[in-house]
Amino acid sequence: MHSLKFLQQFISNAFSDAEFVNEPLQLYEPIAYTLDIGGKRLRPVLVLMSCDLFGGEINKAVYPAMGVEIFHNFTLLHDDIMDNAPLRRGRETVHQKWDINSAILSGDTMFVIAYEYVAKTDPELLPQVLNLFNDTARKVCEGQQYDMNFETKSDVVIADYMQMIRLKTAVLIACSVKLGAILAKASPQDAEKIYDFGIELGLAFQLQDDFLDAFGDTNKFGKTIGGDISTNKKTFLFLKAFELAREDTLLKLTNYYCDKEIDRSKKVEEIIRIFRQLKVDEITRHEIENHHQKAMDIFNSLHFESGKASEMIGLMQEMLGRER
Amino acid sequence: MHSLKFLQQFISNAFSDAEFVNEPLQLYEPIAYTLDIGGKRLRPVLVLMSCDLFGGEINKAVYPAMGVEIFHNFTLLHDDIMDNAPLRRGRETVHQKWDINSAILSGDTMFVIAYEYVAKTDPELLPQVLNLFNDTARKVCEGQQYDMNFETKSDVVIADYMQMIRLKTAVLIACSVKLGAILAKASPQDAEKIYDFGIELGLAFQLQDDFLDAFGDTNKFGKTIGGDISTNKKTFLFLKAFELAREDTLLKLTNYYCDKEIDRSKKVEEIIRIFRQLKVDEITRHEIENHHQKAMDIFNSLHFESGKASEMIGLMQEMLGRER
Repeated sequence: MHSLKFLQQFISNAFSDAEFVNEPLQLYEPIAYTLDIGGKRLRPVLVLMSCDLFGGEINKAVYPAMGVEIFHNFTLLHDDIMDNAPLRRGRETVHQKWDINSAILSGDTMFVIAYEYVAKTDPELLPQVLNLFNDTARKVCEGQQYDMNFETKSDVVIADYMQMIRLKTAVLIACSVKLGAILAKASPQDAEKIYDFGIELGLAFQLQDDFLDAFGDTNKFGKTIGGDISTNKKTFLFLKAFELAREDTLLKLTNYYCDKEIDRSKKVEEIIRIFRQLKVDEITRHEIENHHQKAMDIFNSLHFESGKASEMIGLMQEMLGRER
Repeated sequence: MHSLKFLQQFISNAFSDAEFVNEPLQLYEPIAYTLDIGGKRLRPVLVLMSCDLFGGEINKAVYPAMGVEIFHNFTLLHDDIMDNAPLRRGRETVHQKWDINSAILSGDTMFVIAYEYVAKTDPELLPQVLNLFNDTARKVCEGQQYDMNFETKSDVVIADYMQMIRLKTAVLIACSVKLGAILAKASPQDAEKIYDFGIELGLAFQLQDDFLDAFGDTNKFGKTIGGDISTNKKTFLFLKAFELAREDTLLKLTNYYCDKEIDRSKKVEEIIRIFRQLKVDEITRHEIENHHQKAMDIFNSLHFESGKASEMIGLMQEMLGRER
């Protein structure tokens, strides 16, 4: 079993070795820039680790794994246009550094490149791999649409939110681990199960992201606290708080969210105080733990050589324990 | 051999039978709207006709053929955002009728749907089909980037322009006929040749489009005359005129293109007059004929049952003789 560290280095090298710059430069420079920012490469590592878990050769999974990562970065690029975000991972977004047209077209091209990498698969497995990838890509688009709809929809409930993050975030995590299983020729039953494992892991991962926005340690989290709060984003925390708040607290919460004059840091501070008062922090932790446990239960029902579990469990810890 | 008319009806029925509306409606309504506008469905008809030509079953080609058409419509949708175009085929563009975010995300989703249709291919042929489709999609993006670059580039020459339309327009026509050949299990030699045929046909088709912008009959062409001229688009006609104009004529041409105060219809009229004076109309006709002839020569070297040529020749006539 390859270590998490080895797989991270392996995928990082694969990206360093790949050449994304080409003619016309105006098209390819934003792509190279986007893929150079890096990030944790969680999804391709999940592909490789799942492949390894089921006894597959990681060399045969590296291109499809890169395809998943390129697809993920394409969605971030287009999402950043739609969200009008100036920064991503501390660097200027493509539409900010270049322009919207560059961001649209470079994104489209990244999407094609993602398919090119996915296509570098054992021909025998290609139909299955391509169907999984298409299904995932469509769901991620649907998730992004629901996320945008929620901005103006006033009656969003937690069930809607969970469905949205399932589509927008969890299915790509699930796709990653299932892809690894398919490439390792795991049984269809195990491939389905590890997909469900990925869904639970993905839900926990997104809820953790929501949690850290309010309760994380800025130094370790790498983002400013309260980004979701100050933009009135309808996260799990927000929806849970509105579900639980009564009378005075509900009034205060509503006022803080509607008041456009209020100082940003005061708003963040006050809302976090209300979250704590309503025990939204504990409830969210519990919800994360719940999905983490479901993921573990599915994981433990999979068929792989004993002694191979530790690296995946370590990666789950890393994904879900980023504040610790 | 199926007739052109039959194949047009066949593909039109296939689109009518397909269901593109789904949840979330905000995502899928713009897609259904875009695909409902229709157009001539030239590319999927080319797929089916090429498949039929090489003795394949059109039933097995209909989904990939639809994939090509959906991809084409996706590129138009995103191009319209980039070009800030308010109308397409006489109807409001998606970003105009909805908004830019809808147009970006619905476009992305259409791209996925295109791949879903392409994936509905004989598994044995899928690797070849997918590689062709990826290669084509990437080149179309490159072509669009060159087209955008040309807007601000002052030293564009005809060779640059021909390379741009090869990428932006001709490769998708070439992909269509090659796809039909692959699906009919034509020989690799014939598949390559019909691709080259498609390139020549595609170049002639785009040059014809340029020609009709200045010299077409509005009633038959379906567009306003002089659209390219009034937007200073660097078409074959524009570049050829600047290549040939000397002294007074060059000065006049430059003035008309730089003068922002000039009345639109006067500008179009005067520039068409200069085009005629420089024989740009004859030269363009000759260039179209040249690529048409190259296409015919390649076509005549293909191996298919005698008596099957007439429908493809008829379609070429229709594509290249839209003013007649």
